[in-house]
Amino acid sequence: MMRSLGLAAGLLLAGCAATTAQTFPKPPSADAMVSQAGERPVPASPPAGQQWLYGSAEGAVASAQVYRSLAAYVRAIAISAAPHRQVVLAEGSTLAAPRFDDCGDKPLAAVFDADETLIWNLGAMRYFAEQHKDFDPATWDRWEKTGAGKAVAMPGVTDAIAVMRSAGVTVIVNTNRTAANAKGSEDTLRAAGLGEFKHGETLFLMGDTPDGASKDGRRALIASRYCVIAMGGDQLGDFAQGFNARELSVADRKMLATGEPIAGLWGRGWFLLPNPVYGPSIRGGFDDIFPSDKQWEPN
Amino acid sequence: MMRSLGLAAGLLLAGCAATTAQTFPKPPSADAMVSQAGERPVPASPPAGQQWLYGSAEGAVASAQVYRSLAAYVRAIAISAAPHRQVVLAEGSTLAAPRFDDCGDKPLAAVFDADETLIWNLGAMRYFAEQHKDFDPATWDRWEKTGAGKAVAMPGVTDAIAVMRSAGVTVIVNTNRTAANAKGSEDTLRAAGLGEFKHGETLFLMGDTPDGASKDGRRALIASRYCVIAMGGDQLGDFAQGFNARELSVADRKMLATGEPIAGLWGRGWFLLPNPVYGPSIRGGFDDIFPSDKQWEPN
Repeated sequence: MMRSLGLAAGLLLAGCAATTAQTFPKPPSADAMVSQAGERPVPASPPAGQQWLYGSAEGAVASAQVYRSLAAYVRAIAISAAPHRQVVLAEGSTLAAPRFDDCGDKPLAAVFDADETLIWNLGAMRYFAEQHKDFDPATWDRWEKTGAGKAVAMPGVTDAIAVMRSAGVTVIVNTNRTAANAKGSEDTLRAAGLGEFKHGETLFLMGDTPDGASKDGRRALIASRYCVIAMGGDQLGDFAQGFNARELSVADRKMLATGEPIAGLWGRGWFLLPNPVYGPSIRGGFDDIFPSDKQWEPN
Repeated sequence: MMRSLGLAAGLLLAGCAATTAQTFPKPPSADAMVSQAGERPVPASPPAGQQWLYGSAEGAVASAQVYRSLAAYVRAIAISAAPHRQVVLAEGSTLAAPRFDDCGDKPLAAVFDADETLIWNLGAMRYFAEQHKDFDPATWDRWEKTGAGKAVAMPGVTDAIAVMRSAGVTVIVNTNRTAANAKGSEDTLRAAGLGEFKHGETLFLMGDTPDGASKDGRRALIASRYCVIAMGGDQLGDFAQGFNARELSVADRKMLATGEPIAGLWGRGWFLLPNPVYGPSIRGGFDDIFPSDKQWEPN
């Protein structure tokens, strides 16, 4: 009863943005189950993160804003007469002591993750949410194979791709979709309006190099052929595998990404797209997320 | 049982970012209750949106990236010899047909929302989440009064403020915190390291103009004194009240923000900070969030 009231109040607040000072979230959607006789309960609405990312004006603006900034950056670098430098960490260098190789006369490229970076996986995400399911590898494999037409370009992506391509920059995808489903992913990107990507040339997939879900090997392969002047992704593993080291605490990982010497790369070669829906960013208990010296109670 | 397994799998996936292809979210935190004899269940972890925003490297990077872009924009405009123009909608103009007044020789300013734009309300947000509570006006009122020292500057904010101030741009806060608690909010901003803000001069609060939770009246007041060259916020109401019109559907609101003639403002005067935790962005059922032509099922 308490929770139902909470939900009603949450919905009311959300609907009254024009007149309330603060509008806070509805409770987690697990509270908002529509009971169906004899069946697993079905959530009445997508989780808050999906509402924000896939539905809200704010989520769309956040994507478009990053892509506008990225396109302007890539264009400025591409037309600059200054010698170019890779934004892929040089092989053997680390996040603590990064090195970036000179590009010589390699052709320019920008490298992007696919899922929740270039495309929103609307078909699969709705299915998972409606089924109240976590990620399920078998379903995702079907999605890679058959999802074409049910994913969309994220806001700002098609404009940014047009700017980059017209500046002579090759757009390359480096994703952890599997090499076995290359055709499905090529079809999905094309159907979303992003143009042609070809496996092994402009599309790199898990299995293309021996390091599995790490994208470092594929980044090195791409950087051996191209001068990578920008990278975009929604997870830090889209920039360097070092961020995924198991021993890093939530706080350590944040410090590594936002402290020296890495801080200066964000918005200047490395571009992050917000994804509050899934991934290694969604992790941690109260003491991981909230510093203990910020605890507060009303009284 | 099913859900417990789901949770365990989710945690496992989240912890194994180095080796799994995709890492998907844990179920909503309501599933992850730690039962306490005779008491309301306590969530074992903050909701996914809070994990992303307040805890993750990605959430911190997203904020820092926006503020770096904003600071560079503000500085470039401030040192430009070109005549300046307000980014506040001219009085009487609308989102469908916006006009922006010339600034004449007014001093330059940048206007920001406070909550989840300049500061993260860690104390209050942890309290709400641990209590598994929605927004509660009485608690929030206490937070406005006594939260100083328990909120923090968002990543990138202090650097951006330093850049703007050194370029001669006055930083102004326009928030729906209440005028009755002006001192608490001044203290909170100072304790977060943002410097001095003074109610009625550089801090504008709900109650300062007769239009309640709309910020339009306060924006007009600020624009009567200053040339507002940039605005930052986490909700569209931080830019224009027209986005909060009750009749707008989720899809309409998104179209209004990302279509012409508004689209060009994002990243060029208007800067959005991602907040998947609360607000009018967290709204909508499955059919609002996911277009019907993107439905998909594995088979």
